[in-house]
Amino acid sequence: MMEKWRITQRLLRHSSKLLFDRPLNRSASHISAFRFASVHRETFVETGLGSASSIKYRRFGSAATEIQRNTSFSTLNVDDISYFKEILGEKNVIQDKDVLLNANTDWMRKYKGSSKLLLQPKTTNEVSQILKYCNSRRLAVVPQGGNTGLVGGSVPVFDEVIINVGSMNNIMAFDKVSGTLVCEAGCILENLVSFLDDQGFIMPLDLGAKGSCQIGGNVSTNAGGLRLVRYGSLHGSVLGLEVVLANGDVLDMLGTLRKDNTGYDLKHLFIGSEGSLGIVTKVSILTPLKLSSVNLAFLACKDYFSCQKLLLEAKSKLGEILSAFEFLDNQAMDLVLNHLEGARNPLHSSMHNFYVLIETTGSNESYDREKIEAFLLRSMEDGLISDGVLAQDINQASSFWRIREGVPEALMKAGAVYKYDLSLPVEKMYDLVEEMRLRLGQTAKVIGYGHLGDGNLHLNISAPQYNDAIFAQIEPYVYEWTSKHRGSISAEHGLGLMKANKIFYSKSPESVQVMGSIKKLLDPNGILNPYKVLPYLLSSYH
Amino acid sequence: MMEKWRITQRLLRHSSKLLFDRPLNRSASHISAFRFASVHRETFVETGLGSASSIKYRRFGSAATEIQRNTSFSTLNVDDISYFKEILGEKNVIQDKDVLLNANTDWMRKYKGSSKLLLQPKTTNEVSQILKYCNSRRLAVVPQGGNTGLVGGSVPVFDEVIINVGSMNNIMAFDKVSGTLVCEAGCILENLVSFLDDQGFIMPLDLGAKGSCQIGGNVSTNAGGLRLVRYGSLHGSVLGLEVVLANGDVLDMLGTLRKDNTGYDLKHLFIGSEGSLGIVTKVSILTPLKLSSVNLAFLACKDYFSCQKLLLEAKSKLGEILSAFEFLDNQAMDLVLNHLEGARNPLHSSMHNFYVLIETTGSNESYDREKIEAFLLRSMEDGLISDGVLAQDINQASSFWRIREGVPEALMKAGAVYKYDLSLPVEKMYDLVEEMRLRLGQTAKVIGYGHLGDGNLHLNISAPQYNDAIFAQIEPYVYEWTSKHRGSISAEHGLGLMKANKIFYSKSPESVQVMGSIKKLLDPNGILNPYKVLPYLLSSYH
Repeated sequence: MMEKWRITQRLLRHSSKLLFDRPLNRSASHISAFRFASVHRETFVETGLGSASSIKYRRFGSAATEIQRNTSFSTLNVDDISYFKEILGEKNVIQDKDVLLNANTDWMRKYKGSSKLLLQPKTTNEVSQILKYCNSRRLAVVPQGGNTGLVGGSVPVFDEVIINVGSMNNIMAFDKVSGTLVCEAGCILENLVSFLDDQGFIMPLDLGAKGSCQIGGNVSTNAGGLRLVRYGSLHGSVLGLEVVLANGDVLDMLGTLRKDNTGYDLKHLFIGSEGSLGIVTKVSILTPLKLSSVNLAFLACKDYFSCQKLLLEAKSKLGEILSAFEFLDNQAMDLVLNHLEGARNPLHSSMHNFYVLIETTGSNESYDREKIEAFLLRSMEDGLISDGVLAQDINQASSFWRIREGVPEALMKAGAVYKYDLSLPVEKMYDLVEEMRLRLGQTAKVIGYGHLGDGNLHLNISAPQYNDAIFAQIEPYVYEWTSKHRGSISAEHGLGLMKANKIFYSKSPESVQVMGSIKKLLDPNGILNPYKVLPYLLSSYH
Repeated sequence: MMEKWRITQRLLRHSSKLLFDRPLNRSASHISAFRFASVHRETFVETGLGSASSIKYRRFGSAATEIQRNTSFSTLNVDDISYFKEILGEKNVIQDKDVLLNANTDWMRKYKGSSKLLLQPKTTNEVSQILKYCNSRRLAVVPQGGNTGLVGGSVPVFDEVIINVGSMNNIMAFDKVSGTLVCEAGCILENLVSFLDDQGFIMPLDLGAKGSCQIGGNVSTNAGGLRLVRYGSLHGSVLGLEVVLANGDVLDMLGTLRKDNTGYDLKHLFIGSEGSLGIVTKVSILTPLKLSSVNLAFLACKDYFSCQKLLLEAKSKLGEILSAFEFLDNQAMDLVLNHLEGARNPLHSSMHNFYVLIETTGSNESYDREKIEAFLLRSMEDGLISDGVLAQDINQASSFWRIREGVPEALMKAGAVYKYDLSLPVEKMYDLVEEMRLRLGQTAKVIGYGHLGDGNLHLNISAPQYNDAIFAQIEPYVYEWTSKHRGSISAEHGLGLMKANKIFYSKSPESVQVMGSIKKLLDPNGILNPYKVLPYLLSSYH
């Protein structure tokens, strides 16, 4: 039986993974500037919070409500510039057009603001001085980290002042006994990974964007990524934060303790609020020890039920060493094989209905290998998997990951694509893919893949070109279906500008009302990252 | 070398542990009633928020500021009683003296209120109706679960109406694929444990009080307990909550998803806010699979540095199977051996300076056993441990746990005891014990034990009797020392009434101010669990 598995022992010590649906680094872009409001008139409004002057989809999938600049905001003047130069120094007050064009544009080139100023503070005190001033002057700001976000959260909508904390990139402390890292918000994730690697530790999160994204941005967007199934979300890993509020007050919540029950745990308000409640300036985070043994299996399942059952078995039998459980369907595999250069199916028999990647990470190579081999053998005997292969070396493992990682690229090459990032109960997740297939018939291909272990589905609809009729079949149906099954319309990307008005699909009106009250409490002038996260009327005060 | 370890393979499938410093069930108490305010005049005030009319310690250790009943609160009248009977039914509106005496008193018999009414709602809607009414009438309330708290958080201070959700104890849903449990807040932790055991799952937290405490109370106090080192805090495990606000609004945040980035994650405000921002009515929680193999080692170390080093090695070498890392010092062992019936040192050679309990939990018995045996052998060769024994069966394991669990009982039997529950950086933790010994000299014994793996020290000072001079040597020094080292003055017990005015030792004034603003935002009349968690002036509005 074991011969069926093309297995030998192997080790993946430094597999450089790129699972997240975006490239590692963003390149400079030089698109001519235009106002966001005029770009985003192609709107589909379902919340009643804006007017749907023309129902039309955009090339990039989701729609946004037409937004007017908040008239309570001031416009930048020469005195403002002088003040900023005084506190930050000349070279950290940037008005260079090329730099601004880049900072005004998100990496997808989907969202574009028209800010005239980028500030680069070097200390918490400077961030505090900036915000205190902007708040008193009612100058709106947008906090920007690596600018790798996917929902238009990290670029200006109009002329907001961009505050980039990238110069605040010091590692302040690392405690090997507790594994606690304390650093400034501007540290690039990959630099933290390298630093920790030397210490024998890893970051509890890993993203495809790690070469650009900053830890402050990761925290502010509650970034998910590859290791969530093992190490949980940032709400569990982040031990402390330093945050500057809209009025310039510095909230020192930079604890390094695993246990602290003294009052309300305020830091959680800033994890995932996308810079709309405060600017994260320092982060304290619990880092796991680096374990030496990594295995990766690429498997085939005959149906979605088997994938689910396999997940349960993997949790039970691999238990403490399971570190990733990803899936893609045959439509996704088909696209990868047709559109991705050099891609080949590791299981070279006929096509299967579903493919699953299982990764284990543990402290003992021979035990782990025996464990995964026994697990695979038993799963095959039980009929849960139809075929499979265990990576023999890092190259083979990379080629397996390449298939899973390559789906978004293959989709882009195949034509028009409507992308959705949803959390759903695992048992319901694939029903949506099948229902979309029934709705769309032959007009488009429906592809399902994602982080099965986390209940995170990437639903993609691929068509020869964008088409009103197809879009009308997808939205608002996808959001309504997700809402009906108590899913989330944004699993890991946040709401940003793109889905601010869609929040009601995943959150109750009472909850959104409380969010609005907290926004108003902490940022009464609404200067922090305006027009994002919350519906317009709740986050903008006139 | 291995012979030194009295080891054979063993399994601990159902070790019933009682590590938390309190009994499993509270018995009915019949103490004559007295007003809290008159009891708590023996006050040591350090925040400047109250007047220190007489500086005096209590038998129970910590002190509280003298508190006057908030004059803005109404007093219960017959119309109120009629209204509650109308919405809840006669039998759920309790005025029986014995029942009230019990509900007015905490299990330590340290705090005692004088409430005249206990309400037992059966549904969220009933909780909502109660709070809506109380809010409009300005009747203060205290939410009560199993009433097992240690800081006076779960009993009235004056005449607050007690709301006990114990009748809301239904398990609503369990999903075996994702391990998500959804239940009502009144479910007793042990009942959830039993339910999950049949499904092959465990709760991510385990407490000594599990026979009485309720999941709603666990969430509201962010209970820590035994499994935190492995499964993290409730901020990571709790996936969703349903909460009723002071005005009766029901916040439905009862998601069951691991990933959901749609707006501010409000549920975290209610985890650990001790019922002062809302009453938790339903909980959705991620439960881990039950693993079959459990091992427990009882070890001796020559110094605290070796304990620390051993922790690091255990994290590295036992990695993914480590599930507990506890310690006690020789003074603690001495007390246990002298005062606890039947207790004996498993290491029957001479006394050692430190003792460590290491537990592993994994999915494979033989691998785990080999792993821990190899780890112990290597640690001994490296001089990190001086002696040790691996439990051979569940009885032996229970006898090891009995030593660690027995410390509080031994302390109580030895005489007067001043108890502190602190979080500190692991490398600093034992310095405080040693400094206290220097300060106190021969006047008292200083005992250190606790959850080393979590950085949670139980510092206890044992003396023949309570004594002003000893107390003055301890407080505020202990809190100041903890504060200086950025520790927490409450690792897992919360602030309640006991430490509400001590919050500034662990939290910055700016943070506490924001907490006060959030309290006022969500509970403008201050009716929810008044006088608790926050300093009096921030939580009471006149």
